[in-house]
Amino acid sequence: MKVGFPLILINFKAYKEASGRRGLELAKVAEKVSKDTGVTIAVAPQLTDLAFIASQVEIPVFSQHVDAVEPGSHTGHVTLEAVRDAGAVGTMLNHSERRVRADQVDVVVKKARELRLLTVVCSNTPEVTAAMAALGPDMVAIEPPELIGTGIPVSRAKPEVVTSSVDLVKKINPRVKVLCGAGITTGEDVAAALRLGTVGVLLASGVVKAKDWEKAIRGLIEPIIKRA
Amino acid sequence: MKVGFPLILINFKAYKEASGRRGLELAKVAEKVSKDTGVTIAVAPQLTDLAFIASQVEIPVFSQHVDAVEPGSHTGHVTLEAVRDAGAVGTMLNHSERRVRADQVDVVVKKARELRLLTVVCSNTPEVTAAMAALGPDMVAIEPPELIGTGIPVSRAKPEVVTSSVDLVKKINPRVKVLCGAGITTGEDVAAALRLGTVGVLLASGVVKAKDWEKAIRGLIEPIIKRA
Amino acid sequence: MKVGFPLILINFKAYKEASGRRGLELAKVAEKVSKDTGVTIAVAPQLTDLAFIASQVEIPVFSQHVDAVEPGSHTGHVTLEAVRDAGAVGTMLNHSERRVRADQVDVVVKKARELRLLTVVCSNTPEVTAAMAALGPDMVAIEPPELIGTGIPVSRAKPEVVTSSVDLVKKINPRVKVLCGAGITTGEDVAAALRLGTVGVLLASGVVKAKDWEKAIRGLIEPIIKRA
Amino acid sequence: MKVGFPLILINFKAYKEASGRRGLELAKVAEKVSKDTGVTIAVAPQLTDLAFIASQVEIPVFSQHVDAVEPGSHTGHVTLEAVRDAGAVGTMLNHSERRVRADQVDVVVKKARELRLLTVVCSNTPEVTAAMAALGPDMVAIEPPELIGTGIPVSRAKPEVVTSSVDLVKKINPRVKVLCGAGITTGEDVAAALRLGTVGVLLASGVVKAKDWEKAIRGLIEPIIKRA
Repeated sequence: MKVGFPLILINFKAYKEASGRRGLELAKVAEKVSKDTGVTIAVAPQLTDLAFIASQVEIPVFSQHVDAVEPGSHTGHVTLEAVRDAGAVGTMLNHSERRVRADQVDVVVKKARELRLLTVVCSNTPEVTAAMAALGPDMVAIEPPELIGTGIPVSRAKPEVVTSSVDLVKKINPRVKVLCGAGITTGEDVAAALRLGTVGVLLASGVVKAKDWEKAIRGLIEPIIKRA
Repeated sequence: MKVGFPLILINFKAYKEASGRRGLELAKVAEKVSKDTGVTIAVAPQLTDLAFIASQVEIPVFSQHVDAVEPGSHTGHVTLEAVRDAGAVGTMLNHSERRVRADQVDVVVKKARELRLLTVVCSNTPEVTAAMAALGPDMVAIEPPELIGTGIPVSRAKPEVVTSSVDLVKKINPRVKVLCGAGITTGEDVAAALRLGTVGVLLASGVVKAKDWEKAIRGLIEPIIKRA
Repeated sequence: MKVGFPLILINFKAYKEASGRRGLELAKVAEKVSKDTGVTIAVAPQLTDLAFIASQVEIPVFSQHVDAVEPGSHTGHVTLEAVRDAGAVGTMLNHSERRVRADQVDVVVKKARELRLLTVVCSNTPEVTAAMAALGPDMVAIEPPELIGTGIPVSRAKPEVVTSSVDLVKKINPRVKVLCGAGITTGEDVAAALRLGTVGVLLASGVVKAKDWEKAIRGLIEPIIKRA
Repeated sequence: MKVGFPLILINFKAYKEASGRRGLELAKVAEKVSKDTGVTIAVAPQLTDLAFIASQVEIPVFSQHVDAVEPGSHTGHVTLEAVRDAGAVGTMLNHSERRVRADQVDVVVKKARELRLLTVVCSNTPEVTAAMAALGPDMVAIEPPELIGTGIPVSRAKPEVVTSSVDLVKKINPRVKVLCGAGITTGEDVAAALRLGTVGVLLASGVVKAKDWEKAIRGLIEPIIKRA
């Protein structure tokens, strides 16, 4: 499955609102809006729902995390092979709520490339974004953790964090795409993120905790549709 | 779903032989043999396949691991609520390949009880078995790590580890049931485990890596059927 | 060095007030009061100061933490051998700010016994206290984390946590001594801890952050001196 | 204390041969050779010996590890302030035996700069070296883990790992100096490391486990003396 840009990536986190059957419903809403509008909307369901959801929707599905281990005698770990076998197109890694070590990012990025899985590596500062870009993932997602879940978009509170990140990535590894996360809730936030040089957004509560999922997602992508 | 005893719990680990669709096939084989024979056979699929498999079989499904966090802003974590919403009956915890801290076991065991989910807490020595029993899970599974995956059953190599564990659990918390793990491959191993005072076995490679899954499982439960 | 009871164990944590030379000064004050009064006062300096302080005072010195590894190729780890070679009498383990896994507590407790080092294993609930007691350390220290550093003693806020812990330990392993921690600041708190069946206290900010260290320590041990 | 180059940095790891008093002896030998020859020889003693040794030698002393926490309520952690108060000039970080996350390296590097402490961040592949260099430490030490402790120098087994690392660092952050580690035992290995563009070596067993420490160190620095 090809992933287009701009990209809206919805992280279900461990929110009870998006667990099990309700997670599937949310993925179905995202799929519907994506098909209606042509905008790429991807989802990162809870780990336990990955194959369940990926087998029932036709939008890109990402794992929220993967462990830097080979298939084999590892209990309670998520391998890249399991992510692929579940039908996902790739994986997030190093989210502020699930940081991993740089050498583990290195292992996962190299192996995901072989398995033709996409990697979205999160970071918190321009320096860490630069470091992650040096490892060559498909995307980095810059998210100042202090803004996550606040509804205050990084593009407004700390635009310089995004622009510095974009600049450093260009210098270090221009093939790496930059997503913008933390505090994204509205179409305006998405527009600002794109203006700052990113190719999309990573968000969670802005959609998952919205009363009307479809309305929330349609609001987010409005500036993308207008732009097109 | 009621879980009966003796219990055969098959851990799929991160084996490539039991990932995605092949994991579902293995679960289906376990379901078939269980229905044919009346012996309780449970499975612990890969985390990413949990809801996928639990929604398609009618045998008890366990998570391989759960994190001691509440639903909410946690990326890449597995909550007990997600395990329940996935349709599983409970969770393994503290496997030698995914140890957690005692205070985390305490949190998970107490909360699982509220959610009516079962807990199978692994341990490696009689003393750790006693410690885990003091936390009051439904089951402890004693598995000397040095025997895991060897095909040498603990019941033969270190029977005293099993009997000491059974004795300590009886003293500390007699409601906790004891499973026997590590090196279990044959019906003989299962019979030995039951003779030593346990109520079942936890195994992985003995089934998952067998050429003929059904034959391997039927071999395991033979002494249980004879006993009945 | 013999460790007597009641025991006052002062944890220097990572407080800047007790780092380097100032840590040595605090240990010297504790030593002075101990020699003056005959009450056992032990200290747990910062890891980096362990040998520095232990080589210059004649009161019991504990490590704040130890890793469950053998001497050898381990960078940045603290072995029991290093604790012993530093001149300490033992180690704390599993503090709420540095929890370890039960199997690691098991390894450390067994090996410390061989090396004739004392172990003080922290816990947070009566159930975890029971679990830690099952592993057979010399002491457990029950500290509800929500009270640590508050100045509200567990003996007043949650006396039942202490008495349940004492009762469970008596049942599971009566040779294990129980210390009481969290919120201890005054002699009254120490007296209450002893009345609840513990043999001493573990405290940190109550002494380290006091303006007058000697006065704070003398205040703490007043009820012990009166009792003698 | 100024740290000159080429630099020989001896990591005592958790070797029993270099613990406590014996660790001090080894540091004294390193000091003696350094004073005799003018070559900079630094030591990284065991954490528990840091202040003990740093207070008794006049060569640069490094911590083997530091935690990314502020001074305060942290038990069993090593702060940069504690490293400074112990009399060390800086710290190693992210050794293959004690990896940390990239965001933690970022925090430590930035704060160490404020405290005027040096940072030596270890890495395992050219990509991870590049990532660590992007975080701006004073030095990176490239050490393929599979060669650590083997006596087979990376400069001979995998010279391209060293030269790629040197090249990437030059591109990303030319102020960062590169050390070469893993398998270093002889003066020839040191000479090779310097020829490949590094400014010194990080080694452990090659000195610590040598029968004659002084002879081992003198052997290492021979090519540096000749070069001068």
